[in-house]
Amino acid sequence: MSHDAYPDPSDPRAHVGAAMSYDLMRSLGGGRPWVLMEQVTSQVNWRAQNALKRPGQMRLWSMQAVARGADGVMFFQWRAARAGAEKFHGAMVPHGGTGDARIWREVTALGAELRRLDAVVGARTPAAVAIVFDWESWWALELDAHPSRNVRLLEQVGRYYAPLFDRNIAVDFVAPDADLARYRVVLVPNLYLVRAGVAENLERFTAAGGTLVMSFFSGIADAEDHILLGGYPAPFRTLLGLRVEEFDPYAPGQTNGLIAADGCCYECDLWSDVIHLEGAEAIATFERDFYAGGPAVTRHAYGNGTAYYVGTRPVEGYMTQLLEGICRDTGVSAPLDAPLSVEVTRRVAGENGFLFALNHSANTVEFSLPRPVVDVLTGQGHEGSVKLGPREVAIWRES
Amino acid sequence: MSHDAYPDPSDPRAHVGAAMSYDLMRSLGGGRPWVLMEQVTSQVNWRAQNALKRPGQMRLWSMQAVARGADGVMFFQWRAARAGAEKFHGAMVPHGGTGDARIWREVTALGAELRRLDAVVGARTPAAVAIVFDWESWWALELDAHPSRNVRLLEQVGRYYAPLFDRNIAVDFVAPDADLARYRVVLVPNLYLVRAGVAENLERFTAAGGTLVMSFFSGIADAEDHILLGGYPAPFRTLLGLRVEEFDPYAPGQTNGLIAADGCCYECDLWSDVIHLEGAEAIATFERDFYAGGPAVTRHAYGNGTAYYVGTRPVEGYMTQLLEGICRDTGVSAPLDAPLSVEVTRRVAGENGFLFALNHSANTVEFSLPRPVVDVLTGQGHEGSVKLGPREVAIWRES
Amino acid sequence: MSHDAYPDPSDPRAHVGAAMSYDLMRSLGGGRPWVLMEQVTSQVNWRAQNALKRPGQMRLWSMQAVARGADGVMFFQWRAARAGAEKFHGAMVPHGGTGDARIWREVTALGAELRRLDAVVGARTPAAVAIVFDWESWWALELDAHPSRNVRLLEQVGRYYAPLFDRNIAVDFVAPDADLARYRVVLVPNLYLVRAGVAENLERFTAAGGTLVMSFFSGIADAEDHILLGGYPAPFRTLLGLRVEEFDPYAPGQTNGLIAADGCCYECDLWSDVIHLEGAEAIATFERDFYAGGPAVTRHAYGNGTAYYVGTRPVEGYMTQLLEGICRDTGVSAPLDAPLSVEVTRRVAGENGFLFALNHSANTVEFSLPRPVVDVLTGQGHEGSVKLGPREVAIWRES
Repeated sequence: MSHDAYPDPSDPRAHVGAAMSYDLMRSLGGGRPWVLMEQVTSQVNWRAQNALKRPGQMRLWSMQAVARGADGVMFFQWRAARAGAEKFHGAMVPHGGTGDARIWREVTALGAELRRLDAVVGARTPAAVAIVFDWESWWALELDAHPSRNVRLLEQVGRYYAPLFDRNIAVDFVAPDADLARYRVVLVPNLYLVRAGVAENLERFTAAGGTLVMSFFSGIADAEDHILLGGYPAPFRTLLGLRVEEFDPYAPGQTNGLIAADGCCYECDLWSDVIHLEGAEAIATFERDFYAGGPAVTRHAYGNGTAYYVGTRPVEGYMTQLLEGICRDTGVSAPLDAPLSVEVTRRVAGENGFLFALNHSANTVEFSLPRPVVDVLTGQGHEGSVKLGPREVAIWRES
Repeated sequence: MSHDAYPDPSDPRAHVGAAMSYDLMRSLGGGRPWVLMEQVTSQVNWRAQNALKRPGQMRLWSMQAVARGADGVMFFQWRAARAGAEKFHGAMVPHGGTGDARIWREVTALGAELRRLDAVVGARTPAAVAIVFDWESWWALELDAHPSRNVRLLEQVGRYYAPLFDRNIAVDFVAPDADLARYRVVLVPNLYLVRAGVAENLERFTAAGGTLVMSFFSGIADAEDHILLGGYPAPFRTLLGLRVEEFDPYAPGQTNGLIAADGCCYECDLWSDVIHLEGAEAIATFERDFYAGGPAVTRHAYGNGTAYYVGTRPVEGYMTQLLEGICRDTGVSAPLDAPLSVEVTRRVAGENGFLFALNHSANTVEFSLPRPVVDVLTGQGHEGSVKLGPREVAIWRES
Repeated sequence: MSHDAYPDPSDPRAHVGAAMSYDLMRSLGGGRPWVLMEQVTSQVNWRAQNALKRPGQMRLWSMQAVARGADGVMFFQWRAARAGAEKFHGAMVPHGGTGDARIWREVTALGAELRRLDAVVGARTPAAVAIVFDWESWWALELDAHPSRNVRLLEQVGRYYAPLFDRNIAVDFVAPDADLARYRVVLVPNLYLVRAGVAENLERFTAAGGTLVMSFFSGIADAEDHILLGGYPAPFRTLLGLRVEEFDPYAPGQTNGLIAADGCCYECDLWSDVIHLEGAEAIATFERDFYAGGPAVTRHAYGNGTAYYVGTRPVEGYMTQLLEGICRDTGVSAPLDAPLSVEVTRRVAGENGFLFALNHSANTVEFSLPRPVVDVLTGQGHEGSVKLGPREVAIWRES
């Protein structure tokens, strides 16, 4: 499994989307390490404006791939071309030559560091959370003539992925008919198209004690893109304990309020379902419109597990508290507690556990290690409190 | 004559455009009742976001068609499709089946009510105001390479229609060479292209005592789209008592001020004519630019009638006071006085007069009946003050 | 050499772009007078909104062409067409006929005035400043797949032209391999593509005592659009005394600060170079980012002359003080001192010098004549202080 990644350096959240694609690549290979085949040393040439990678950014982003399961980090391209359509695409050897060029210095330093990571090769990434991701459903979801043109799968998946990324919860991507037994939590954003056997698979997972979270406009069509009749979302009504009578797609800028169980109010937008409970309970209700007071987010005990349904697009703050609560309830946690700007992952090879900590901010951060570690790049031992400078990376072997 | 109407529920003024199209349909059939052949029960599937009709909105909008001359109200479609490009287009029977679905309840209730309106069938809508509407002129007006691309006929007609709609003045649409003898007021927005005989027809109407209101960029071209030479608007200079020397098309956001006879200042935009009076008097002048103090809106006594000319696009407030004044002067009035949100129409079948009152607001309104009435839907008699709830509809037979 | 000019009357700076095109026409003809072959009397018909020329604006803009080297001023078209795609394009004879039409009065008055300018015919425009302008470099600069799509030659040239226009400094446009011996200052905005011999030509000019100002993303490619290797801008590194290691294209809205020698801070945007000095000195530095404190604008003594480099797009205020300082140092000055809204040029025919003064503002302005003059249009003599009304034009023969 190999991947080409060109996150935009002018986007301060580009590393989140990159992480999502890296987790997807790792998942597509069944959890085996993958190779970052193409990235650029500094700037590409095909955007409207091609921002450069600031000092340390290329190293940070390269190590992010390793942190998320890559065993190889490569570049397109060796030497910047003199001619042709890609002559302004970055390279390891710039037009000005190597000399003391920043790009050359950073790329050779990265090479030296990667050489010290032999112990990490082959290590796997354990994850207790999975996101269901299905290409056919994606294609069908975004066809024309739907209730809203603005329901886009990658954007919706990002709404469920980002809060987990920010809290350093490892995530796998899985097909809807995959074996889910190894996961504690399964997220199902906008699974519009449902092939035969999928509903049973999700029911089996939940009945066995799993926690499932599904979002609106799921369970609508079969593999032929024919509507599954009998009340939306027909194949999931038993699992979710509800029925959706109507869709209310929102105009851009239109919002509703979400009243959560603690009385706190969040905003939601894009879409609201008009929901009838059939066993589930509402854990958040709509604040306005003719369905004010009606269910917006629901919870349903199913077998030994729990099935949540999110009938709208809540703001990030709501998604965070919802998913944090679910992780707490299911005992899913990060490898260590770190400030929000620090990305932490854990890879395991046999007896050895490796912790990766990447500081995506421009400030030095400080946090505590849960147990003594040895720095793989320097050989130095650490315990207790550690500091990480701006764009700094640490790779530790657990003792 | 039949019509398909899909007003956008997310547009709070959608019912005004719908009313205009309904009056046009009635007019195209020579005043005979027409059929609303297609509408949707709740939401369509071809907009970017397909807002649903709130409870009561489908009934209100269906009765609006009847109020404006329809004798039939139908739906596309019976049953929501399982497959194909229109599977998310609304229907009388939703994907979830009938059961207690809101859509099904509302559509069956409407059917029961329509059955009680037999007495209305065949009733006509008397109107003392006509708007000249001509397809060939429309097409020619919006061709390329004109002084401004932003002069669009439907938008301009709406500027003259909306103030009359808001005051419940009935309007017919007529061809420019139609017999105008039955009208007291004829509005002529942007009649760019003028076929032979049209100028004489409008002159005849005015000379006989009628009141005519014409807007800028009228009388410019003949039936071949060749300029009518001799000073704009050549065929109407005698009728209007003026000559337009220059056009000044405005950039978006550019405005001028209108100083009305009472000294009050309104805004105008889109276009200004540089006008020379040749018998007419200015009833509003421009506030700024090299034609400051020059005529913007004029009045000309012609035979036994009066011809107004509006050489710009005034704001709604000006159009309202202009058209209100003209209605007052000509004795044109609404069937009854009602608050602004209440649409009132009158249909007449032989001896019987029917009043329709539709409350487009979300509030209960109260107003007085001019004479005792009997509610056609309930059989109950009313006189004096009546109340109308949110989105409520009343159909009364005059005693 | 002839030219068609249609500046947009709704653009308050349209006359600056017009002036630039007039100077380019004069330069393309080797300094010989040219003919304004097409302009419109008032308004064209091909813009979205076709603003008209206010009273006096057509005369002012016609005389601007004469002021900048035209010996003839003509119109498209004689008579407004009755039919066809250009029937709303302005003409000398409008649709309404001549009569007392403003357009007709202004165009005949202009004709009478032009007849009095025989003495000006053949006069040349002396200029001490040249801007290098090269079509092949323009085309290559704006090809796809560059560091930024927003580097557009005409916009960049305008950034160097406008401050000189506003200060009434005459400018010629020259090819990069032209003989530059007659100029004191040569500006080289974005000369991306450099043919053989060009670098030597610019070096020769500077070594001989000239002052050169070059902007970023110059000297990048050869005549085949192949990168000139060896460190940007390879052919100009010796002349400029610097090396550019990296390009940092900015997103729209992204800015940096420029700290000038006097400590004053200006904004810059679009692009920043990461510059290494190799003999030049920084006269302005960047305020932010990883190259904060690094050179942004540099000065390099080369032979008997000076070469400046501008490694970003500074705001107008900075460009003005930079170019004003260079003009002061090199003794380049305007024909006379006039308020900012007054365009002043000088044409010379043998012994005779002609001063043109055009007031582009809506206010009367007053300023002093450096020596006695005779008004060519009225025959009247003037000395000392003179007044110029709104949109007024004066043409004086120096005594």
